[in-house]
Amino acid sequence: MSLPLLLRLAELNAAYAAAIDTDRLEEWPDFFVDDCLYKITSAENLKRGYEAGIIFADSRAMLRDRMTALRTANIYERHRYRHIVGLPVVGAVEGAAIRAETPFLVARIMRDGRTDLFATGVYCDVIREVDQRLRFAERIAVCDSGRIDTLLAIPL
Amino acid sequence: MSLPLLLRLAELNAAYAAAIDTDRLEEWPDFFVDDCLYKITSAENLKRGYEAGIIFADSRAMLRDRMTALRTANIYERHRYRHIVGLPVVGAVEGAAIRAETPFLVARIMRDGRTDLFATGVYCDVIREVDQRLRFAERIAVCDSGRIDTLLAIPL
Amino acid sequence: MSLPLLLRLAELNAAYAAAIDTDRLEEWPDFFVDDCLYKITSAENLKRGYEAGIIFADSRAMLRDRMTALRTANIYERHRYRHIVGLPVVGAVEGAAIRAETPFLVARIMRDGRTDLFATGVYCDVIREVDQRLRFAERIAVCDSGRIDTLLAIPL
Repeated sequence: MSLPLLLRLAELNAAYAAAIDTDRLEEWPDFFVDDCLYKITSAENLKRGYEAGIIFADSRAMLRDRMTALRTANIYERHRYRHIVGLPVVGAVEGAAIRAETPFLVARIMRDGRTDLFATGVYCDVIREVDQRLRFAERIAVCDSGRIDTLLAIPL
Repeated sequence: MSLPLLLRLAELNAAYAAAIDTDRLEEWPDFFVDDCLYKITSAENLKRGYEAGIIFADSRAMLRDRMTALRTANIYERHRYRHIVGLPVVGAVEGAAIRAETPFLVARIMRDGRTDLFATGVYCDVIREVDQRLRFAERIAVCDSGRIDTLLAIPL
Repeated sequence: MSLPLLLRLAELNAAYAAAIDTDRLEEWPDFFVDDCLYKITSAENLKRGYEAGIIFADSRAMLRDRMTALRTANIYERHRYRHIVGLPVVGAVEGAAIRAETPFLVARIMRDGRTDLFATGVYCDVIREVDQRLRFAERIAVCDSGRIDTLLAIPL
């Protein structure tokens, strides 16, 4: 049965979150198209027109590098995330590109078991269908708080 | 493609939450029918039969007044919310009216970036379809905790 | 209208969470098949191959016993939960059995109103369709944190 677009987007988000939260980081770049844009920023930075972002990558190759760096640097699993992702609000569909905004909440679980509410925000996405699979052409994770951990390591 | 009712209700909730969380409060009253009931209360108050609620409005006009008051009073954006909303449990459908219960969690992000788990609970809703759009005839936000911030300002 | 499987699983999870969070524990065992497996464990225990789990039941009868014990022991409602459950990632479908993994976050609300982020994790489920209703053949709640409250009482 063909799923409605809304549900396909929700499915994409669920798969994305599961890959990160179960430490299958190798799969993470595959959620993006080759010439993607991935960024983590804050609502305030966005409002002020700061383009930079806390984490920035403008190709899938950069995402792969980042992932490899994480694997090399982090001998120990220092913490894990748990994403809880809301339903996307689907915006304009322009040709093969779909705009969607999806709220997220990420809990962080430290090695000793302490759990805190690490980040909340909204993913501002442009999604494209490539070979019948939805992939992110853009994923801007806009955090609600400007106080984002400078040790931010695992992708949101 | 016509979406199943469950998904249409989920979509309504996602749009509602997005309007509040991105500070588009002007759109908030439009999620309700004219002669609506909107209330924030707690599970304990409800159990004891207290009708009042912490916030109460029984028409869309009252919601508009409240929204205007918020805009006038809050010169500064003091805090923002991030709603994470679960899937509705759809109840009885009586004519054009649909009952549904939807769990929510709201994180609050203060101006300085501090984020806390502000409220959890369930929306007890009656939804009606008006001009092919679903709107709330009743939305009772039943908070799990009786300790709700008396400064509660932004609608849940 | 027949719902896609993904949505039916999401609906099952929403109903499951609602039964627990609104203290309709009597309905809880009915979400399982007779010869079910229900377990609460942690990601670390699972990794180390510890089979036991913090809570363990291998039949619906055991779930009923547990529920009855909770009703007898807890004269006062000591705390309540609020589950926020993500969309399932649907895995293999083997005959009538469906594998799915569903992230969860549980907030705990104490009698005095204090609310904390109690647990996060993923449900690793095997679901079977029995008499046109989906039920859990297995539900392993894998908590992200190993530091799970030893007073853990209400089922996750």
